[in-house]
Amino acid sequence: MRSHLTHLECTACGETYPADRLMTTCPACGKVLFARYDLEAAAKTLTRESLASRPWNLWRYAEIMPVQDARYALTLGEGGTPLLPASRLGKALGYNRLLVKDDGQNPTGSFKARGLCAAVSRAKELGASAVAIPSAGNAAAAMSAYAARAGLDAYVFMPADTPEPMKAECRAYGARVFLVIGLINDCGRVVRAGAEARGWFDVSTLKEPYRAEGKKTMGLELAEQLGWRLPDAIVYPTGGGTGIVGMWKAFDELEQLGLIGSERPRMIVVQSEGCAPIVRAFEQGERHAQLWEGAATVAPGIRVPVAIGDYLILDAVRQSGGTAITVSDEELLEGMRLAATHEGLFVSPEAGAVVAAARLLRERGVLGQDDEVVLFATGAGLKHTDLVTGEYPVLNPDDPDLLAAIDRAYGEPTA
Amino acid sequence: MRSHLTHLECTACGETYPADRLMTTCPACGKVLFARYDLEAAAKTLTRESLASRPWNLWRYAEIMPVQDARYALTLGEGGTPLLPASRLGKALGYNRLLVKDDGQNPTGSFKARGLCAAVSRAKELGASAVAIPSAGNAAAAMSAYAARAGLDAYVFMPADTPEPMKAECRAYGARVFLVIGLINDCGRVVRAGAEARGWFDVSTLKEPYRAEGKKTMGLELAEQLGWRLPDAIVYPTGGGTGIVGMWKAFDELEQLGLIGSERPRMIVVQSEGCAPIVRAFEQGERHAQLWEGAATVAPGIRVPVAIGDYLILDAVRQSGGTAITVSDEELLEGMRLAATHEGLFVSPEAGAVVAAARLLRERGVLGQDDEVVLFATGAGLKHTDLVTGEYPVLNPDDPDLLAAIDRAYGEPTA
Ligand SMILES: Cc1ncc(COP(=O)(O)O)c(C=O)c1O
Ligand SMILES: Cc1ncc(COP(=O)(O)O)c(C=O)c1O
Repeated sequence: MRSHLTHLECTACGETYPADRLMTTCPACGKVLFARYDLEAAAKTLTRESLASRPWNLWRYAEIMPVQDARYALTLGEGGTPLLPASRLGKALGYNRLLVKDDGQNPTGSFKARGLCAAVSRAKELGASAVAIPSAGNAAAAMSAYAARAGLDAYVFMPADTPEPMKAECRAYGARVFLVIGLINDCGRVVRAGAEARGWFDVSTLKEPYRAEGKKTMGLELAEQLGWRLPDAIVYPTGGGTGIVGMWKAFDELEQLGLIGSERPRMIVVQSEGCAPIVRAFEQGERHAQLWEGAATVAPGIRVPVAIGDYLILDAVRQSGGTAITVSDEELLEGMRLAATHEGLFVSPEAGAVVAAARLLRERGVLGQDDEVVLFATGAGLKHTDLVTGEYPVLNPDDPDLLAAIDRAYGEPTA
Repeated sequence: MRSHLTHLECTACGETYPADRLMTTCPACGKVLFARYDLEAAAKTLTRESLASRPWNLWRYAEIMPVQDARYALTLGEGGTPLLPASRLGKALGYNRLLVKDDGQNPTGSFKARGLCAAVSRAKELGASAVAIPSAGNAAAAMSAYAARAGLDAYVFMPADTPEPMKAECRAYGARVFLVIGLINDCGRVVRAGAEARGWFDVSTLKEPYRAEGKKTMGLELAEQLGWRLPDAIVYPTGGGTGIVGMWKAFDELEQLGLIGSERPRMIVVQSEGCAPIVRAFEQGERHAQLWEGAATVAPGIRVPVAIGDYLILDAVRQSGGTAITVSDEELLEGMRLAATHEGLFVSPEAGAVVAAARLLRERGVLGQDDEVVLFATGAGLKHTDLVTGEYPVLNPDDPDLLAAIDRAYGEPTA
């Protein structure tokens, strides 16, 4: 059970590079690098049978993960998240075979744990002593946690208006948290300056090759949890795009390993009406997305105006016969409400967007009621309790009319 | 793979009752009822080999779980939480073989998911249409989530000063949340009145027999994850005590199933200096604890002044050669900091108390440096970001002295 990583390859110009040193983007063309493996060798030990007895974390797929020496394979128990049948939600949305992959159960409360687990492990293995990230929240928390576990210094740069809990989480892990006057791209500028001058390793989305390797485990798990087949459609909240891109890569690797066939799910990108660069590019038939001006949505993870991996996202959507769709903030909040009240899944607003999109996709006839559809719940609602509002009735336990007060407060039971 | 539940048995007077109807405490003496199984029959299918291929949720142990018809076995993916080696934290505290069971990765962010998963599943199976709970937070959230999944009405009664996020989480799941003027015992009074008049099923700690069955899976998993043996000591934050009591019951059942021997870990109760009824009773040689007046600590889960299962907790501690210990709020906050900065585990204050206790237990020579010790991290720190304080340096990305500003903010790197 060892990694069969062989080299890095540019997804745009095809140039190859050795994988034995820290790399960011392609030195030749500036685009995204992918990790490549000797899949023929990997197939000898990465089998359905051998997997059955391995622990449910990222490293169960060690042969096609980048870490070379198992001592560097950090784990906080990421991955192995449940794939839950959601029949009550399905009924509400018009699906007979709806599934939710609840990735908010990862350490640090989001799927970002997967990507940063892989990236920080590999950065440490290749000699980094400090990691840095521009982030509005989930990625920063995940990086900070794995850096703490690895004993690396962590530098986090957040927009000055980031809500308190997101900052506090990173600080709890001992990260050096900085607020930057400006937006996420201004944070990115500061990270690049510090990386150059102070030797931090920059783990920005798709600007180093290994976060995508962590994310691809979502695709690997999905196939394994479905008994080595894929669903009809995957609906995914898309910001920087590592999720879609990572899963698409995973499916190719699984096919080459002989673990699945050539079938693919329709990959469906969900963005917000207030920030939809990928949806716009998809509709206009472009392979690259223009920067979205004035990005605004209550879902921070999909408030991403520009994505270096735009062409990789759009390729996956088109090759899979998928689509790209927007939802309003109002719709995504209603999506959160539906998931929580119908299934007991209190998900992040990005995941609420996916629920809302699933409803629209049925209404528009894009998906059918018997399609097997997987909704990705990428984050936990726990980080977003401020989105749940309203007053609470107050009771005096000695009130002689206590029961009447209880009955009055919410009206008749609904179950 | 079916439940071998046979009957209920009172842990105090020994009276037995059929298990086919909703029950609370012992009708004869008012004490705690336990679920009992035909363990001989269960042993035929609950084997090391059969377990290897079952999914990691509560129901992998179906033979010794209460639900009769698998259709009622609710799941949100609870259980199967990681048992993480914590060598950096171990070094800081003086242990060579320290492990953390990270139960904050459960759905709803705490180990309460286990107990309420079992209780709500079984309540639904036995015909309840509404469930109710007095709770300061984690238990209410867990009950609300499983009630939503099951389509049951949920009634939550919280002290009026409960922090906003805890209330919001329950509301998100659609629970009917009420604030009660007073403390948790006043909430309990309201629940009892409503249960009687409106037919809600009361799932208060150890006042119905099945929450403990959910909690016992912590003990089952621990044995399984260690390769069917137990550690030298378990350190556990103790409020109502279902955790300790459930695990202790689990170990007995595992021995009768032939899955482990007669060895037992030392069970170590951790409470807060501001609310330590069990520690006091332990020290005074009592089997029942007196109500703790003026309970106060920043760790809400262990701010429990009176526990109906006091005698069960104290029996387990004494029979195991364990002990009971208090920590101050200052110490438990430092415990949270240590777990997060040394291991990337941002845990709840109750779990911080366990880390702090582990340090004291070494200092006092109660535990040795080569003892294999398991710390239970019962909740996620995410619900407690308000406990992380401090100012954050603000950067202007166009500052010509940007790097100097960065260097100055936190002093030299420490890694
Ligand atoms: C909860 C959540 N969902 C979705 C996304 C977008 O993910 P991706 O970069 O894979 O497109 C993010 C990114 O921050 C996120 O935090
Ligand atoms: C996070 C946390 N830890 C520990 C406890 C105490 O648990 P037990 O009832 O098992 O003693 C609670 C109870 O509310 C809790 O929420």
